[in-house]
Amino acid sequence: MGPGFAGGIPRGPNGKGAIVDVERGETVSDIGEFALIDRLAAALPPTTGQGIDLGIGDDAAVWEPTPGTVSVITTDTLIEAVHFRLDWTDWRSLGFKALAVNLSDIAAMGATPRLATFTLGLRGSERVADLVSLYEGIGELAEAHRVAIAGGDIVGSPECLSISVTATGEVTRDRLLRRSGAREGDLIAVSGTIGASAAGLQILTDPARFAGLATTGLLVSAHLQPIPRIALGRLLGQAGATAAMDLSDGLLGDLPKILAASGVGASLDARAFPVAPAVRALFPETWLDLAMRGGEDYELLFTVPPARFDELVRRAEAIGSTLTAVGRIEPASHGLTLIGLDGEEHAALDGAFDHFRRSEE
Amino acid sequence: MGPGFAGGIPRGPNGKGAIVDVERGETVSDIGEFALIDRLAAALPPTTGQGIDLGIGDDAAVWEPTPGTVSVITTDTLIEAVHFRLDWTDWRSLGFKALAVNLSDIAAMGATPRLATFTLGLRGSERVADLVSLYEGIGELAEAHRVAIAGGDIVGSPECLSISVTATGEVTRDRLLRRSGAREGDLIAVSGTIGASAAGLQILTDPARFAGLATTGLLVSAHLQPIPRIALGRLLGQAGATAAMDLSDGLLGDLPKILAASGVGASLDARAFPVAPAVRALFPETWLDLAMRGGEDYELLFTVPPARFDELVRRAEAIGSTLTAVGRIEPASHGLTLIGLDGEEHAALDGAFDHFRRSEE
Repeated sequence: MGPGFAGGIPRGPNGKGAIVDVERGETVSDIGEFALIDRLAAALPPTTGQGIDLGIGDDAAVWEPTPGTVSVITTDTLIEAVHFRLDWTDWRSLGFKALAVNLSDIAAMGATPRLATFTLGLRGSERVADLVSLYEGIGELAEAHRVAIAGGDIVGSPECLSISVTATGEVTRDRLLRRSGAREGDLIAVSGTIGASAAGLQILTDPARFAGLATTGLLVSAHLQPIPRIALGRLLGQAGATAAMDLSDGLLGDLPKILAASGVGASLDARAFPVAPAVRALFPETWLDLAMRGGEDYELLFTVPPARFDELVRRAEAIGSTLTAVGRIEPASHGLTLIGLDGEEHAALDGAFDHFRRSEE
Repeated sequence: MGPGFAGGIPRGPNGKGAIVDVERGETVSDIGEFALIDRLAAALPPTTGQGIDLGIGDDAAVWEPTPGTVSVITTDTLIEAVHFRLDWTDWRSLGFKALAVNLSDIAAMGATPRLATFTLGLRGSERVADLVSLYEGIGELAEAHRVAIAGGDIVGSPECLSISVTATGEVTRDRLLRRSGAREGDLIAVSGTIGASAAGLQILTDPARFAGLATTGLLVSAHLQPIPRIALGRLLGQAGATAAMDLSDGLLGDLPKILAASGVGASLDARAFPVAPAVRALFPETWLDLAMRGGEDYELLFTVPPARFDELVRRAEAIGSTLTAVGRIEPASHGLTLIGLDGEEHAALDGAFDHFRRSEE
């Protein structure tokens, strides 16, 4: 099937057969795996190959670690109908987000991303043009952070569409951010705002309810194209943060992981939570729940000794990040408490999203 | 759900409800994602964590590259009904193979594997005991090669079971094996035998036909638990092989990739192909086709100047590998030819398996 397919005469409404349905466009099955790999590679900016010896096309990709650094690796998979729905996201955003959530993990280690591999599990009925858009979204974010896209794998997956990403990065050992370093008395802080992504998801799931309202676009964008806080992660590693992670399961889902790894407790103050005005305005009843339990903000959650916080806030402002203290590390015996909007202290329950556990149990 | 589940009274034949069906055993949905991660981590031998700072449980795993080496990375995904079927494989073999096919790519670069990450896409109805077996298979191979299992991701995937693996390794730059180094006059050689895995797959798909015959076990094992040729890959890098790759798509599917990358042609001699006696005996009509087009042998295919071959054969024997010359690199204008069992030269067609392209096109 050559590049002149657009002139082809459709043979049937489903684009079946050798002649491609013009409106539907070429599918993966039309051009095959090997031609698809060439098209996707061509959709990436040339700079996304830098620093890599052999990318798409050899058994493995090769890169030279920076002397004096340790390497970090993370992996994340997006499954259709579980992590995304094609009626809620465009393909370009999907590619952007698939890379973003992995770079966010690299950022949470204080590391600089170097390269990423992609594995697509495809039904075969996907349009080539959509997958090119996916790769353009990947390329946009990769280019912004000089991350090399080092090939990967394309496999047939008749029952579900999936995108698996693995990203590597590097950092000098003394600047590595772990979850285990939080100490009693440290401030707990977050970057940006929290709850915007969960609010955006609610807008996507019920567009009629929010039709015509302003400021929804910002929240939808927070959900579809989260920004990995790479420069901020590096700053936190340099400026003495004691523990860090990225917010994927919500503040009440993720903070307990730092507490468990560090062997400490914490008190949070809901009155301090940085919640975007649009979230408060559009969700007057539930904004606090969105802020505490909403996932996928991909902001950084970290701890830092109070004496270092003001300086850190200033340095973060210089790279466009706002930081907000939302609580304090307590002894392990304290557990996790929350000062509510009423000024009263409550026990805070773990609100993590478990992908499998039945809620009735 | 505690460890005492075996005493539970089944509520229904499908194990639905909070009380677990004793015969069916605990499922992923019964215990949830976080408990599952703990169980799987416990199923790995302790040595599979060595060399890794933070494995399962932080945002990313950390390792220290060996000074003077370059790093390599590869990724591969197995999808149920496409790459494996649970009525043909046991779970332990599935785990073994998922890691093996990735380590095979590392071996084909001449590199030593360092660590691997796993992402499981699970329906939730999988039995925990089966997934523990899967991890025991992973652990067996990881321990044999001192590969660290550095965590990964577990995601809900209601429509299909998938296993995504990414592996990294390292090698000094002068010993790196590429696909692009084959030169006119080089011998083309393979390790071990070819066609055994494809023969094993045919036995699995039609057990009645082969019932009671001896030697089927060896072939089935070649399909279910392929051995990555890691020590051999290292040797090839040291001993002057000019190009290498692993055999996943069959000799006629894979050799053209070396030819294209190196800008050369080749002549193969079918009379020299190392085909196991069991394959010839059980498949008297099709053994040559299995040897040429059968995939998933995960042996190494490489090129080497003739003057170095005898020494290489001796050194390979010392590490338990047999090497067989099967052809010669020719000028690009020669294309790819095959001397058949009749001694006549034929044009050889590309027999690569394309995961998507419709065969009728």
